[in-house]
Amino acid sequence: MNVFDKRADEAISDEQLLADEALYSSYGDTVHYVEPPKIFRRCEGSYMFDAAGTPFLDLQMWYSACNFGYANPRLDAALKRQIDTLPQVASQYLHPTRVQLAKTIALDAQRKFGLKGRVHFNVGGAQAIEDSLKLVRNAKNGKSLMFAFEGGYHGRTLGASSITSSYRYRRRFGHFGERAMFIPFPYPFRRPKGMTPEEYSEHCVRQFARLFETEYNGVWDPKVSQAEYAAFYVEPIQGTGGYVVPPPNFFRELKKVMDQYGILLVVDEIQMGFWRTGKLWSIEHFGVTPDVLVFGKALTNGLNPLSGLWAREELINPQVFPPGSTHSTFNSNPLGTAVGLEVMRLGEEMNYEQTVPEKGAHFLAGLKDLQRRHKEIGDVDGLGLALRAEICTEDGFTPNKALLDRMVDIGLAGDLRHDGKPIGLVLDVGGWYKNVITLAPSLDITHEEIDLAIALLDQLLTRAKQG
Amino acid sequence: MNVFDKRADEAISDEQLLADEALYSSYGDTVHYVEPPKIFRRCEGSYMFDAAGTPFLDLQMWYSACNFGYANPRLDAALKRQIDTLPQVASQYLHPTRVQLAKTIALDAQRKFGLKGRVHFNVGGAQAIEDSLKLVRNAKNGKSLMFAFEGGYHGRTLGASSITSSYRYRRRFGHFGERAMFIPFPYPFRRPKGMTPEEYSEHCVRQFARLFETEYNGVWDPKVSQAEYAAFYVEPIQGTGGYVVPPPNFFRELKKVMDQYGILLVVDEIQMGFWRTGKLWSIEHFGVTPDVLVFGKALTNGLNPLSGLWAREELINPQVFPPGSTHSTFNSNPLGTAVGLEVMRLGEEMNYEQTVPEKGAHFLAGLKDLQRRHKEIGDVDGLGLALRAEICTEDGFTPNKALLDRMVDIGLAGDLRHDGKPIGLVLDVGGWYKNVITLAPSLDITHEEIDLAIALLDQLLTRAKQG
Amino acid sequence: MNVFDKRADEAISDEQLLADEALYSSYGDTVHYVEPPKIFRRCEGSYMFDAAGTPFLDLQMWYSACNFGYANPRLDAALKRQIDTLPQVASQYLHPTRVQLAKTIALDAQRKFGLKGRVHFNVGGAQAIEDSLKLVRNAKNGKSLMFAFEGGYHGRTLGASSITSSYRYRRRFGHFGERAMFIPFPYPFRRPKGMTPEEYSEHCVRQFARLFETEYNGVWDPKVSQAEYAAFYVEPIQGTGGYVVPPPNFFRELKKVMDQYGILLVVDEIQMGFWRTGKLWSIEHFGVTPDVLVFGKALTNGLNPLSGLWAREELINPQVFPPGSTHSTFNSNPLGTAVGLEVMRLGEEMNYEQTVPEKGAHFLAGLKDLQRRHKEIGDVDGLGLALRAEICTEDGFTPNKALLDRMVDIGLAGDLRHDGKPIGLVLDVGGWYKNVITLAPSLDITHEEIDLAIALLDQLLTRAKQG
Amino acid sequence: MNVFDKRADEAISDEQLLADEALYSSYGDTVHYVEPPKIFRRCEGSYMFDAAGTPFLDLQMWYSACNFGYANPRLDAALKRQIDTLPQVASQYLHPTRVQLAKTIALDAQRKFGLKGRVHFNVGGAQAIEDSLKLVRNAKNGKSLMFAFEGGYHGRTLGASSITSSYRYRRRFGHFGERAMFIPFPYPFRRPKGMTPEEYSEHCVRQFARLFETEYNGVWDPKVSQAEYAAFYVEPIQGTGGYVVPPPNFFRELKKVMDQYGILLVVDEIQMGFWRTGKLWSIEHFGVTPDVLVFGKALTNGLNPLSGLWAREELINPQVFPPGSTHSTFNSNPLGTAVGLEVMRLGEEMNYEQTVPEKGAHFLAGLKDLQRRHKEIGDVDGLGLALRAEICTEDGFTPNKALLDRMVDIGLAGDLRHDGKPIGLVLDVGGWYKNVITLAPSLDITHEEIDLAIALLDQLLTRAKQG
Repeated sequence: MNVFDKRADEAISDEQLLADEALYSSYGDTVHYVEPPKIFRRCEGSYMFDAAGTPFLDLQMWYSACNFGYANPRLDAALKRQIDTLPQVASQYLHPTRVQLAKTIALDAQRKFGLKGRVHFNVGGAQAIEDSLKLVRNAKNGKSLMFAFEGGYHGRTLGASSITSSYRYRRRFGHFGERAMFIPFPYPFRRPKGMTPEEYSEHCVRQFARLFETEYNGVWDPKVSQAEYAAFYVEPIQGTGGYVVPPPNFFRELKKVMDQYGILLVVDEIQMGFWRTGKLWSIEHFGVTPDVLVFGKALTNGLNPLSGLWAREELINPQVFPPGSTHSTFNSNPLGTAVGLEVMRLGEEMNYEQTVPEKGAHFLAGLKDLQRRHKEIGDVDGLGLALRAEICTEDGFTPNKALLDRMVDIGLAGDLRHDGKPIGLVLDVGGWYKNVITLAPSLDITHEEIDLAIALLDQLLTRAKQG
Repeated sequence: MNVFDKRADEAISDEQLLADEALYSSYGDTVHYVEPPKIFRRCEGSYMFDAAGTPFLDLQMWYSACNFGYANPRLDAALKRQIDTLPQVASQYLHPTRVQLAKTIALDAQRKFGLKGRVHFNVGGAQAIEDSLKLVRNAKNGKSLMFAFEGGYHGRTLGASSITSSYRYRRRFGHFGERAMFIPFPYPFRRPKGMTPEEYSEHCVRQFARLFETEYNGVWDPKVSQAEYAAFYVEPIQGTGGYVVPPPNFFRELKKVMDQYGILLVVDEIQMGFWRTGKLWSIEHFGVTPDVLVFGKALTNGLNPLSGLWAREELINPQVFPPGSTHSTFNSNPLGTAVGLEVMRLGEEMNYEQTVPEKGAHFLAGLKDLQRRHKEIGDVDGLGLALRAEICTEDGFTPNKALLDRMVDIGLAGDLRHDGKPIGLVLDVGGWYKNVITLAPSLDITHEEIDLAIALLDQLLTRAKQG
Repeated sequence: MNVFDKRADEAISDEQLLADEALYSSYGDTVHYVEPPKIFRRCEGSYMFDAAGTPFLDLQMWYSACNFGYANPRLDAALKRQIDTLPQVASQYLHPTRVQLAKTIALDAQRKFGLKGRVHFNVGGAQAIEDSLKLVRNAKNGKSLMFAFEGGYHGRTLGASSITSSYRYRRRFGHFGERAMFIPFPYPFRRPKGMTPEEYSEHCVRQFARLFETEYNGVWDPKVSQAEYAAFYVEPIQGTGGYVVPPPNFFRELKKVMDQYGILLVVDEIQMGFWRTGKLWSIEHFGVTPDVLVFGKALTNGLNPLSGLWAREELINPQVFPPGSTHSTFNSNPLGTAVGLEVMRLGEEMNYEQTVPEKGAHFLAGLKDLQRRHKEIGDVDGLGLALRAEICTEDGFTPNKALLDRMVDIGLAGDLRHDGKPIGLVLDVGGWYKNVITLAPSLDITHEEIDLAIALLDQLLTRAKQG
Repeated sequence: MNVFDKRADEAISDEQLLADEALYSSYGDTVHYVEPPKIFRRCEGSYMFDAAGTPFLDLQMWYSACNFGYANPRLDAALKRQIDTLPQVASQYLHPTRVQLAKTIALDAQRKFGLKGRVHFNVGGAQAIEDSLKLVRNAKNGKSLMFAFEGGYHGRTLGASSITSSYRYRRRFGHFGERAMFIPFPYPFRRPKGMTPEEYSEHCVRQFARLFETEYNGVWDPKVSQAEYAAFYVEPIQGTGGYVVPPPNFFRELKKVMDQYGILLVVDEIQMGFWRTGKLWSIEHFGVTPDVLVFGKALTNGLNPLSGLWAREELINPQVFPPGSTHSTFNSNPLGTAVGLEVMRLGEEMNYEQTVPEKGAHFLAGLKDLQRRHKEIGDVDGLGLALRAEICTEDGFTPNKALLDRMVDIGLAGDLRHDGKPIGLVLDVGGWYKNVITLAPSLDITHEEIDLAIALLDQLLTRAKQG
């Protein structure tokens, strides 16, 4: 059997795959964060399945790319329908679903934000971020410095790495001449002693505002009322940073400062968009209007890397951002836009604005219950079905990455028990200290599955604590 | 009928789509290079079809992303099969086709180049280029300056724009601190007077070599034998630059200089890979071994934006490029790797190494015949089914963008005649002066379709010259 | 009389000079901060004199470049002696005073800091800063990002502007790819409400230390214990920033953090060095050891732009920083080194370590007395003869630049009265809000002159407040 | 005897100085290009003297900083006179010689170039270059990329190193995000085979012009007629590059291209200005008008590091380059401007426009005669008293740095013979291969001294060739 044998893909054993992977595959991505890497063969709803057929309840759903469940029949059907209609068309030409998807998103934004705007597509979240950087730099006369948050994550191209806080992502790669200025994010659980979360939020805003107090704070020239920085890149709820939900007033207060000094607001909804938090865009919870909004991941439920941005008309109209400003071969590929359009329709019909908060509350209650039984759970929190549980030492505060790593390994081992059968658990690790379980279950998860998740987490934690 | 009406996509008229697009869609990509944009509804083999059902013989095939014909049944079936097997899996986990595809590519490279190496996937050509920049910067201790060619094109992220020659792609976006040094490419048709193409090739190599003569040429410190530049990014045959084929010895001679001074060779096969030139990789024609090879586009025949790179073991082994070096959500999405694997198998079986040169010779002969009848065709050339025809004024040399623009518009109007029926022609414009028809027909184009293409080009040119 | 007439210089009237200056001279420096610019003709001790012979008591002494009084006979004589001995020698060759001056400074540092080190000369403070940037970047494997303070000032070359906080100094000049990260400085008078200066100092240190808590704070990779930033540029007492004296423990605490994370300490003594604060280097007050120390200005009492740096042996020894690393034509010009050496000897003999604190205390007492009579003086403070008085509105806090501007204009008008005669006052304006009188009188100012200064300030302020 | 002993400077032995220097002095400048470094004690006219009193005929005059002879009585007197009049004045205030010197230079430029303009002072050539970069970046809306020449040298600050060709000067210091594009300079002796110098000059201009042919050559956007590069930095005659004199039409032809594409011309006269070539500015030989002209070195005959720039009114008028745009403490220090003004008067009176070409012709004739006797002299050339002799192997072409290094060492040994007495020779080494004697004798050198120089060179070369 060689690689050109069609039957190879399914028949080939895990051992052979791992052996091949060790020889021919880059380790540079995140597959080797666990050793040996886990191989999956099938997926459905909230579950992944390995070669042995063991189900793994997935609480991360491909980092929130599969909000609508694995192998969602309706979305898979939309993809197949488009394969049979118009699978390919060069990005220089139009096709119906591209136009319809842009219109759907723009009309929604117009209704919610009261602003005309336009949509620009690309593939991969980082490329949409790169497009947004180009849009902002163009709109601001070439200004290329950005604010972003400590704990923020916007991708791994060179440009996206410049505005992503973690130095680890830049260290190997030389100089980054557009490195962002990273501003503290009001992380409620790890706030300074003696402050409430709200006070910490106000403190963070004040810290930002003081940058503009005098020219000597470094970013503002009061003589001409001009800032050195063009835009502020924000995730309303930090994704990789650990599903950190800021106090409700935070963005409203921050935006006041930004408006005063002409700093554009670029909202990164790549991980939190598409009803993850109970609304199409997570920024809708916070009472502010974005200048640019970037989306990706769940737009196609993982069936196509389509991504994109919406921007206010002033920033993106054809006079300002004319033909040829940016481009990529697959930027509005029809398989992607067809599925994206179906996602928008599905979302419209599914009443997620009601069900997601309900399920989120159920899940969070379960986590809180779990917390009462395990003092190693330092913090639980969430918005909709973006939930977090922070794993600590027994003091409930000191980050305990080692314990969480054991939990992940046990979950992937697939030998937890449910109804007398083996089952696994897929968890994602995030957070500033890599000690946060960032929970992004399927939006269609059932209440029974939520209870199962809590039960499995309990098993997992109990075993992991045993060492 | 609203946007959430499923029947909308197909039923909606071109007029409505254009009206919606004008309101809600960014014009920043290349759709508005023609006005009004052209809308296609269906595709098959070498043809696109518009709402009226008029066929358009496509001689560009989505900039060479659809080498294997539109709606290729075998590849579409592979995609559907994967949808039914494992449509989604987080990029942190392995799945069979990811491993198999990496192995297939790496084993092929090992056989051809005599080098061990590994494959790293991403989505979108530009993101694979960004990954290659990270790989090179990492391998070269953070050095971030690159050589690239005048006329070269590597994508439109900020990093890719830095190594893409056209200043137009950077102008709106402020400072580019890693702007490449662009080296002249031996463009045979526009070579200096009095030189043969081979002499021009040697001249270009010498011009490059003299940069290293003394420290005062600016890039080389002879005291420590170290260069300021890390790698040379090359398209073996320029794509956007106008399908320019350099003299056969060019890369061999250039590589000697690069080896002498420790400059890595990064080969961009995004447009010319996958048998476009009659070999899997176009660099195979030129007798040199790449250090890094970047691919995309036709890897999935346009069904998924999967892209990737292959690199020599020394540059990419897990010690040098360890877990977490780079990452993207969709980087090895299973729908992409499944189709990619099927493309590799199809290519293996289809005997393109024989048929593509034959068809290419047929097509080129037709173009040469056309050139004899139209003195406005200044140059025709090609390698395999990557062909070029340079449109000039009557002197056969002065670039005539206006005439080519008229040709494109007439082709898209869809009222050429074939067998008494209306037919259109899809052409792509490239070249340093935007006066080159860059021809990338389906690799499965028939000899009859080639004859038709020539006949339609003849009609087109005759009409376009009438003004 | 034309410009080649030798008598022109003295005979030419102020009116003619101003008319010529308006036509032929750049306004880009700071001369036109007052309109019309003031012209001086003679200087002696603590006084400048204008064409009318009116004396101006100078409380800024050329921004602390003339610590030893104008026309200091001993230093002028040293300069003349060197003119008669060896006025010129190419910087490629040695001469006695260059060696002696380096030795004097290095031995003093060795005694005080317990560290071997070496001296490198240049001309102009900013060029010495540039040399220090090169030294640090070299020592840190090319790392080019620096920390510096809000309110900090290090010069106006492009490199120095990158680490100088005020955005106004960068705004006109495009992108600065090595812009420093500016850290809050514990400015006692403008500390947050409810904190003591010491608490604010501790707060600032903690704010800095938290940058290193996790990789997501943006500057530290805990996996390899490496920082993104190479060094921290500090003025122990801010100069242009308004002669701000931090709490005594500040640098000791800050340095602990820096040492923990391998951040070099570069101390800029250009304005505060040479006994301005009562010690040769102002950093001596703060109990920390610099890695690099940069000096200029008073090194020659204004008679030559000689500047330089001292660095720890590890950073500057010939293996690490070999011949040819940096260079300038005038870098150790003999007129400069001769005067510099005489300044070191004079300082050694003059007992400034005792007299400067005494005079400073006298001056500060006078300012405090003044403050009691003028509520517009919001703050007075000082270390040695580096003193500050902050001009505010009647609330004693809101910065009042307009009032200070009037004071400056009145001072330069030269019609204050002393002993029945007209007299002027030369003041310098600094501070984050440009409302601070930064007082740097001659170190040889007499106690009588100090009393006169206070009396004149009283007159000035009284008149200025009248509108 | 300690360092505070006044008699130390003169009495201290060479041995002691060398020992001290080895311990306390940075080796990072160019002193250790010869080992051991040479120490001089006295200077006069064309001679330096060492501790033994041996005279050294100096043919480099501090890299052309001392055009008017060492210890020039008139200029030394001007300096002393200013010490006695107004030795110090803060750069915020005006003084007569500052205004007069600016006027003198600006009126001369107006007469010669037919352009109004203004003068801005600083200290050190590199700082004037930095000011010019700021001026150009400001005038070009922040554009920060520059053209410069291969072989060009503009100083060693970070900004100046970016536009200086030699990579060696950047290598140790990390990333340079504004690295210039270095254009070939028509170096007559090392021109391509088969071309005359004039043809090479035309070739270089054409190579530059072709950069603007299409957008794909990388620097020009023809759609908006805008260039990526702001200015071209040129030395009319390369200094450090080896006193290379380009063919007479070169700059005229180059400027035509620059004017067509809006590239500013910045002329660096730091080394070749002040009658070195027989005219105040060396660019006057070439029939072009600068946009900015930068000067330094001989402006004060080495008595003060004063430098500066002249710029066209459009670029530097107070609206465009307003107060506070740039600044340095010593930028128009009165000792510098007084000597500078005296230099301008001396130059006016000395008839250098006639004597320098005469003496240059005499010297060049001597070099040509020497060349006939020594085949190792590959090339001699010059303009005025900027002369070159290229030291090669016996083939008269291959650079022979080793031989020239021996010559330099023998010259500095001081044991050549003249009139039965020992004498030395001070030579400077330059050129792309470090094999060029760059001759810059005093403009007041006598014809007898020229003959002596030739005789000593003959002795030197003869001895050096013996090994």
